[in-house]
Amino acid sequence: MAMKQIITLTTDFGLQDEYVGVMKGVILARAPAALLVDLCHAVPRQDIRQAAYRLRAALPYFPPGTIHVAVVDPGVGTGRRLLLVQARQQLFLAPDNGLLSFLFPEAGCGPARAVTCEALFLQPVSATFHGRDILAPVAAALATGLAPDAVGPLVAPDDLVALAWPGAEVEARQGLIRGVVTGVDGFGNLLTSIHRRDLPAPRTEADWPGLRVTVLDTEIRGLRQTYGDGEVGRLLALFGSGGFLEVAVNQGSAAARLGVGPGTAVEVFVGQEHGLLYNGVV
Amino acid sequence: MAMKQIITLTTDFGLQDEYVGVMKGVILARAPAALLVDLCHAVPRQDIRQAAYRLRAALPYFPPGTIHVAVVDPGVGTGRRLLLVQARQQLFLAPDNGLLSFLFPEAGCGPARAVTCEALFLQPVSATFHGRDILAPVAAALATGLAPDAVGPLVAPDDLVALAWPGAEVEARQGLIRGVVTGVDGFGNLLTSIHRRDLPAPRTEADWPGLRVTVLDTEIRGLRQTYGDGEVGRLLALFGSGGFLEVAVNQGSAAARLGVGPGTAVEVFVGQEHGLLYNGVV
Amino acid sequence: MAMKQIITLTTDFGLQDEYVGVMKGVILARAPAALLVDLCHAVPRQDIRQAAYRLRAALPYFPPGTIHVAVVDPGVGTGRRLLLVQARQQLFLAPDNGLLSFLFPEAGCGPARAVTCEALFLQPVSATFHGRDILAPVAAALATGLAPDAVGPLVAPDDLVALAWPGAEVEARQGLIRGVVTGVDGFGNLLTSIHRRDLPAPRTEADWPGLRVTVLDTEIRGLRQTYGDGEVGRLLALFGSGGFLEVAVNQGSAAARLGVGPGTAVEVFVGQEHGLLYNGVV
Repeated sequence: MAMKQIITLTTDFGLQDEYVGVMKGVILARAPAALLVDLCHAVPRQDIRQAAYRLRAALPYFPPGTIHVAVVDPGVGTGRRLLLVQARQQLFLAPDNGLLSFLFPEAGCGPARAVTCEALFLQPVSATFHGRDILAPVAAALATGLAPDAVGPLVAPDDLVALAWPGAEVEARQGLIRGVVTGVDGFGNLLTSIHRRDLPAPRTEADWPGLRVTVLDTEIRGLRQTYGDGEVGRLLALFGSGGFLEVAVNQGSAAARLGVGPGTAVEVFVGQEHGLLYNGVV
Repeated sequence: MAMKQIITLTTDFGLQDEYVGVMKGVILARAPAALLVDLCHAVPRQDIRQAAYRLRAALPYFPPGTIHVAVVDPGVGTGRRLLLVQARQQLFLAPDNGLLSFLFPEAGCGPARAVTCEALFLQPVSATFHGRDILAPVAAALATGLAPDAVGPLVAPDDLVALAWPGAEVEARQGLIRGVVTGVDGFGNLLTSIHRRDLPAPRTEADWPGLRVTVLDTEIRGLRQTYGDGEVGRLLALFGSGGFLEVAVNQGSAAARLGVGPGTAVEVFVGQEHGLLYNGVV
Repeated sequence: MAMKQIITLTTDFGLQDEYVGVMKGVILARAPAALLVDLCHAVPRQDIRQAAYRLRAALPYFPPGTIHVAVVDPGVGTGRRLLLVQARQQLFLAPDNGLLSFLFPEAGCGPARAVTCEALFLQPVSATFHGRDILAPVAAALATGLAPDAVGPLVAPDDLVALAWPGAEVEARQGLIRGVVTGVDGFGNLLTSIHRRDLPAPRTEADWPGLRVTVLDTEIRGLRQTYGDGEVGRLLALFGSGGFLEVAVNQGSAAARLGVGPGTAVEVFVGQEHGLLYNGVV
């Protein structure tokens, strides 16, 4: 029985060229039973962090054994390594430029390997398209049964390029949480680094009638459950489907309304009484 | 033998985020033999009607048993229902916001059901991404053999949200047909609500040398067979591949030329003698 | 055992409409075991040449037996023919408008046939969407075992529409190569008609320290191996992954920097001593 192995692709190639299609040709020529899924090819050019956010958001929804190939690779052809990381029962192929470093501190991150076994590569290997010449054929080989340890030697975890991932700073006594806008989705929703679990328990929206979210000098009162909660055009805050705080406009664009993007500071004030909750007083 | 079940996806998500890829992960994890087809992800945001037009145009070209998942859902997480409709030997999953209501008056529309069986859903169900948490796993369950009546209870046809679909008004005595621009395709062609069958028989282009199509104050004489019929840059009218009247420019954009879009009135004057045809005089 | 036949699609349809999805429906209804690969749907409208470049660049990466369907077809419904060409152990379906003419002079180009067997078509055949009504069902038939000679009669090679493909003019004595910008990719890299093999052997980058690339009045000295070779923002020249000379900016857009696009002249001066190499003096 042929394996039905999912291989996802995440790149900053866009779709205006044949580059993504070529990677698929290389994969399917070697692993015709693979199920190819485009995760995203509209990562902003060279934006390693945005690629990582998308991959991190998506991976809980893929089954064990999935192979994720991510190519945002401004250093292609230079000395940077290519990696195979085993984590959460899935496999990740990407340059060693921080793209996968969100995986490292997590429980369940397995070994990381440098992809060095040239016998697996498409020959001759170009200096400018390792997605096609190295990652695609290696993904195909893994999809058809190659053991991960055959791709190359282990790399020590502290020898990998790591990016600092913005999180949330909780000032518990003041009931204040500081975060940052991490991205803007296609609807214009502002995605932030503040997760539902950064708030004191219990964590349902109704528990913080006095909560305030501040982006620049705009203040939003209360939390909504969903985008359509309230009148059309309303600016609102809610926890999105990945658990992170979002600022949105019902049937509109919060990014356009507020004129902000990645990097803008966001604050949540949950109120003094919730400051007490943080301190375990209850 | 694994079923080769086609599942199409139509959304207003765009392709700049991982949202579509995540839905595919959810489906393929449960139904690895499904054949996923992107029908369109560039539906204008929250534009239920444009999603419906695309779906309506596409469904004749899919085989019996195809499952169509459509997610243009400004009311996600509010009280609006999700529907499973059986029609034309295919299955349709979408919010009860009118997106599927073009199916209701048609012959062959079968039962509509509310999608309520929580055992089929991805848990926990978010309030903001029912495409991922409800429609994707339900589509996968249907693709792997679940009977439609297991998704939830029947909904009475007159209890469903229905949109008014613009058609054509025929003033037979005057030989006049009034319609409206329903959309603009990627080539800049104006799609209209006037169908080939709204004209009196016989319906070949050569039969109306005196026919005139009017959009705003622009008048186009005669009908062409195809976009390339005449010189490059020519404004022309023809019946498109779905049977609807289009206004086009040979190798150009009619929408840009005329500066119009959805909602603009379109008139066809077939001539007095054809008015007689309408009246059965011949 | 079902064949795992790859069918690629290249069009100028864009992704904002359902047109590509409809072609996939037609194919999968007839050839459910086919593996569909989107090569590119963002070919500039009616730009036959850009479609051909993408197809030519991609085809070395697809396995024998692959069927390529290309629909950039401003003449749809007019007298132009549709072709099936066998070349390099692959099959190509496209209008006879020059889109496939890059294949004709190549070694290994097999017979070209007019696609005329109406029994294979979707009925009724529209005058405006032959991708859907003719090429898609014919591709599906070929994918499920139809012999190529069943689609229609042979066409004599010199009876096919041929485009002139820009190459490189080598003025060997002067060590000068003249070419042209053939396209701009999504990164803003300028692709040119000058191939690595147009330079005198040996052909490694280090061999021409004095080489100069000129685009309009901008001169770039030396060749780089890869985009990230040098500081961010640097304008550079290199041979891209398809073997053609590219002008690029490290993490930026050369097209935006230089304000040029397809058609702009590009010159490479390899130096007088290399002029001698061209002449076989060494």
